[in-house]
Amino acid sequence: MNLIELEQRAREILPAPTHDFIAGGADDELTLADNVAAWQRMRLRPRVLRRVGEVSTATTVLGVPLSMPVMVAPMSYQRLIHADGEAATARGVAAAESLLVVSTRATVSLEEIARAAPELPRWFQVYILRDRGWTVELVRRAAASGCRALVLTVDAPAVGRNLRALRSQFTYPQAQLANLGSGVPSDPAALQSYVGAQHDPTIGLDDIAWLREAAKLPVVVKGVLRGDDAAACIEAGADAVMVSNHGGRQLDTSVATADALAEVVDGVGGRAEVYVDGGIRRGTDVLKALALGATAVMVGRPVIWGLATGGAEGVRGVLDGLRDELVRAMMLCQTPTVSDVSADLLHRCARP
Amino acid sequence: MNLIELEQRAREILPAPTHDFIAGGADDELTLADNVAAWQRMRLRPRVLRRVGEVSTATTVLGVPLSMPVMVAPMSYQRLIHADGEAATARGVAAAESLLVVSTRATVSLEEIARAAPELPRWFQVYILRDRGWTVELVRRAAASGCRALVLTVDAPAVGRNLRALRSQFTYPQAQLANLGSGVPSDPAALQSYVGAQHDPTIGLDDIAWLREAAKLPVVVKGVLRGDDAAACIEAGADAVMVSNHGGRQLDTSVATADALAEVVDGVGGRAEVYVDGGIRRGTDVLKALALGATAVMVGRPVIWGLATGGAEGVRGVLDGLRDELVRAMMLCQTPTVSDVSADLLHRCARP
Amino acid sequence: MNLIELEQRAREILPAPTHDFIAGGADDELTLADNVAAWQRMRLRPRVLRRVGEVSTATTVLGVPLSMPVMVAPMSYQRLIHADGEAATARGVAAAESLLVVSTRATVSLEEIARAAPELPRWFQVYILRDRGWTVELVRRAAASGCRALVLTVDAPAVGRNLRALRSQFTYPQAQLANLGSGVPSDPAALQSYVGAQHDPTIGLDDIAWLREAAKLPVVVKGVLRGDDAAACIEAGADAVMVSNHGGRQLDTSVATADALAEVVDGVGGRAEVYVDGGIRRGTDVLKALALGATAVMVGRPVIWGLATGGAEGVRGVLDGLRDELVRAMMLCQTPTVSDVSADLLHRCARP
Amino acid sequence: MNLIELEQRAREILPAPTHDFIAGGADDELTLADNVAAWQRMRLRPRVLRRVGEVSTATTVLGVPLSMPVMVAPMSYQRLIHADGEAATARGVAAAESLLVVSTRATVSLEEIARAAPELPRWFQVYILRDRGWTVELVRRAAASGCRALVLTVDAPAVGRNLRALRSQFTYPQAQLANLGSGVPSDPAALQSYVGAQHDPTIGLDDIAWLREAAKLPVVVKGVLRGDDAAACIEAGADAVMVSNHGGRQLDTSVATADALAEVVDGVGGRAEVYVDGGIRRGTDVLKALALGATAVMVGRPVIWGLATGGAEGVRGVLDGLRDELVRAMMLCQTPTVSDVSADLLHRCARP
Repeated sequence: MNLIELEQRAREILPAPTHDFIAGGADDELTLADNVAAWQRMRLRPRVLRRVGEVSTATTVLGVPLSMPVMVAPMSYQRLIHADGEAATARGVAAAESLLVVSTRATVSLEEIARAAPELPRWFQVYILRDRGWTVELVRRAAASGCRALVLTVDAPAVGRNLRALRSQFTYPQAQLANLGSGVPSDPAALQSYVGAQHDPTIGLDDIAWLREAAKLPVVVKGVLRGDDAAACIEAGADAVMVSNHGGRQLDTSVATADALAEVVDGVGGRAEVYVDGGIRRGTDVLKALALGATAVMVGRPVIWGLATGGAEGVRGVLDGLRDELVRAMMLCQTPTVSDVSADLLHRCARP
Repeated sequence: MNLIELEQRAREILPAPTHDFIAGGADDELTLADNVAAWQRMRLRPRVLRRVGEVSTATTVLGVPLSMPVMVAPMSYQRLIHADGEAATARGVAAAESLLVVSTRATVSLEEIARAAPELPRWFQVYILRDRGWTVELVRRAAASGCRALVLTVDAPAVGRNLRALRSQFTYPQAQLANLGSGVPSDPAALQSYVGAQHDPTIGLDDIAWLREAAKLPVVVKGVLRGDDAAACIEAGADAVMVSNHGGRQLDTSVATADALAEVVDGVGGRAEVYVDGGIRRGTDVLKALALGATAVMVGRPVIWGLATGGAEGVRGVLDGLRDELVRAMMLCQTPTVSDVSADLLHRCARP
Repeated sequence: MNLIELEQRAREILPAPTHDFIAGGADDELTLADNVAAWQRMRLRPRVLRRVGEVSTATTVLGVPLSMPVMVAPMSYQRLIHADGEAATARGVAAAESLLVVSTRATVSLEEIARAAPELPRWFQVYILRDRGWTVELVRRAAASGCRALVLTVDAPAVGRNLRALRSQFTYPQAQLANLGSGVPSDPAALQSYVGAQHDPTIGLDDIAWLREAAKLPVVVKGVLRGDDAAACIEAGADAVMVSNHGGRQLDTSVATADALAEVVDGVGGRAEVYVDGGIRRGTDVLKALALGATAVMVGRPVIWGLATGGAEGVRGVLDGLRDELVRAMMLCQTPTVSDVSADLLHRCARP
Repeated sequence: MNLIELEQRAREILPAPTHDFIAGGADDELTLADNVAAWQRMRLRPRVLRRVGEVSTATTVLGVPLSMPVMVAPMSYQRLIHADGEAATARGVAAAESLLVVSTRATVSLEEIARAAPELPRWFQVYILRDRGWTVELVRRAAASGCRALVLTVDAPAVGRNLRALRSQFTYPQAQLANLGSGVPSDPAALQSYVGAQHDPTIGLDDIAWLREAAKLPVVVKGVLRGDDAAACIEAGADAVMVSNHGGRQLDTSVATADALAEVVDGVGGRAEVYVDGGIRRGTDVLKALALGATAVMVGRPVIWGLATGGAEGVRGVLDGLRDELVRAMMLCQTPTVSDVSADLLHRCARP
């Protein structure tokens, strides 16, 4: 099934408030729309006659082998979408030989996710909380459960306003946040507020090394949209940066990730891997991200559409579909491997 | 309540001709629409990891402390909108710790406004009238009532044509212009014409200093869209300039204020404060104006929506909402104070 | 009445095929639409505080004084629109103190037009026909009837295809072409074909001087869209050039006249007057044309809307309305005379 | 009949799945739409007064004289459209004095096509198949039947996904592929898969010379969108290159052919002829392609519309219509021959 149709099916299946919570973006949703449009605006210059009969989409991220340069972004509250929540997602991602970033606000515990898909490479998304001890506890538990890296979200010193969810009166449901340990509120909304209030907005570059040391895991800094910030993160010890505007859910009218990627790649200057999420819907979008210098991309909402419509199989279908599209796009561009994808695949005068 | 919904509510509440008088712009309303669109086109480059845990939106304009760099633009005939008119607006603006510019065509007297909100910083918007004595009388009365600066409107040597209001047959109502003194027509339409005819279109740069001297008050020149004009105003003694196209109500297809701001800031060259109005609807719009070099912005129609739907409380709600949005945007951009907002927050390739 | 409403009224009044014949453009009507849009895209930078209390729109074209830099373009078959045809138009144009270009395909004779409006400055639009003697006869008759210049149409070596008129099965009616003399077919369609076939497509630059000499009248070359062509015309003896794409009726996707004007003005280099038509609907459009270096503009279809809805009075209303708008725009830009309108009134980054 | 109406008629006549198979493009059809839009965006700068009374659209491609620089692109399965399939097309193209590229997947045999239109210049479109012997057999048979050149499709190492056809459940019908010889599956779908699987994706630049030698025919490389690829093809022995993205059917978001043409012409540097297809709908599109340096264009879907609505006569009508439009455009630009069409006919600031 095509993603456009899948999105429509998910919309029909999910309760409207839940759908709006997932689909919505901050304020006027201009960045939400621009994330998708920015990839679509870019034009490809396929090569011909390069004797490429087969392509391999295989790659690695921080040394982890993947079947393709596509990972699954951290997304919260997946039990809102499917009874098995993150466990189903994990099985689907494993079947597609991709990588899952588990959200701090997952509704299935890290250990259950590990049991659901033991072979699946997993990373753990984390906020640095005001309670540093709690933070350390969380990331060590993640490490113990087999997560191989941390994804530190840095674009949330405040919480964006999802007007669409507000209008449809979305409320946090009984689905519990499974990884927060004891001593947290049991009421869902209270818990949500509590965790939000725990986010430490005063974090700085030093916290990258602190977190890395606390968890003994590599740290990916997620939410970078500027070349200078990217350079600073790398110099502060980050193992990778991820170009993200939180799926258009935080600062409306922030630059589309496709439009920010090139300057971040420049800022990093080859010293680390760069990932990108936001608006990736097609194999050609993945190819464009690679051409701009990304090592890999992450997808978010499409995985939710797969989860809503087909559980683990749906998730796998979405990822397999993207890989099929990427294979086709790479064949048609005659780039046999992801490292063959170069900047000249993009038309220099991409119209706005 | 969100501004989009508030605008819709105001449309439902107000009589259609009144709504059209407020909402309409000159001729084909191309500038009216572009004012909003120009801010929306600009893309932000938020910073991360700057150890910013709290932000302060506080600032000053001509030495007057405000809770945020947002003031309320002069707007006429507010008793058309709410029974308490400008008095209600004043109470709301005071509660939001902002600043009100009282229109020459206010329907509540300067003194009543002062009584309604004694602590509120007020400025007085003025046209230079053919009858200079009358002008002097007006501005001295404004000074006596506590207004701390004059806002001299210079973009109205002729009156723009509001086709929307004409089509819905808007007529000036019984609401009296409260500050024009005796000897003016009592019929509202006749009064309106009379005042319009009193506007002196032959004013020049010298009149800035004349007015300043007459009122012993600082003068803000409102309606500047060019760098050369801005420089000339400062050199002629203006204390500040305000980038404005009169809310799109005067010269249709004049440049959007967001697109004119940078050249005005350049023209002023740091010698004075620069304000801007036109199309500001979100905290991110305010942030963009600051990034382009404005000291503060003014909002107009949104305040009317607040007044129409909730009186003083509605006005306060609009302003508090903007401040909340600005706080969030500043947090998300990691700019702790308004003076930390710099030009690099804007994406250099803002698409048209 | 506003032009938008007038256009709608004319559409209701005229038979659909006639309306489509007038309103339509060549092929996909892309240039037709772009003519209007190109003026609308341009943004103005009004000046302030220049001590301009009154403006004069008066100007001259080839020495002829006009009340404003707006003339009426040659348009054929005006008896299709109104029983008095070009005579009514002439009376309206005279009342507005403008200038009328009489079309070769007028349905009222040159002499009757002269009698209808003896004081009206008139020019005569002409094609060079294969039968040069007939051409000479025509232009001498025009001169004898008081036309003061010739407007030589050069963009019609072939006839554009008006698909809209074809689809609504427009046919040329009984309204006779009044200036073609004897010996032409009496059947309207046959006459139309006959005249079309008479257009000499082999005309060259030399014909400018030939025509000028034959008629002893100044020659305006109409249909120029390039700087090199404009320069060549001037060097070949033209007294003026007119930037025109025949109202979008000839070569579809030819450049909008607003977008071609600057290069034509450059090509002419001050050696002659430059006029422009196509898409002028507002006083601000006229002002923009002046800012780009035009001496005056011509309007076409709006005059037909006036003629259809109000005869001579309707025509006058359209022209007076444009003058009112131009007066207001000049006041708001503080340009007291048309010669004060300069290129800096246009925003340099007019978005596409 | 106008092409827009013809397209509509064809849509009504054809079964919906067949129509969608023809009309659809890859994935989101962004390139499909951009192909048409890119020509439409370009603006022409017509010349005047160049003494051009008649124009000739005649030209040659690889030495073959044509009545105009318009050929018919290879399209498969034409018996789906009309009972006489490619034979009808051939008769129509012959009547229009154009050139037909016969598809490998034609549903009428090469010999029957030759008999249907013996005088018609024909080229044969070919894929290099995994079975090189079969390839040689095919191209020699084409040569024997009178084809004068081969058009080697190089943009199909994988098969694009036509979502529109998939959604309307298009299936390959009983119409047989007539040129594939014996030993192929008789079931249509199986045959289609079989042929697809036979495409050799490993072809390289060397295969150009191999094919040329095998067939003793000139080789046109079709599907080039880059200057470097074009140069490499010419250096590898290609007789011409054709700018094509397979009608938007292969790699979605590949650059529009109109936008790629200039760089391909630059890459070829005058060493060979360059053709272009994709989105050509008007005579002005042909003229723009010539101005950008193409020797000729190919049209595809419009020919199908002609075939569906009028068989051979319909095909001829489409081509004659394009020639009429090109004649008119050339007259209006005063370019008497195709070699007079130069780059300066395009406006330098074609808006995006």
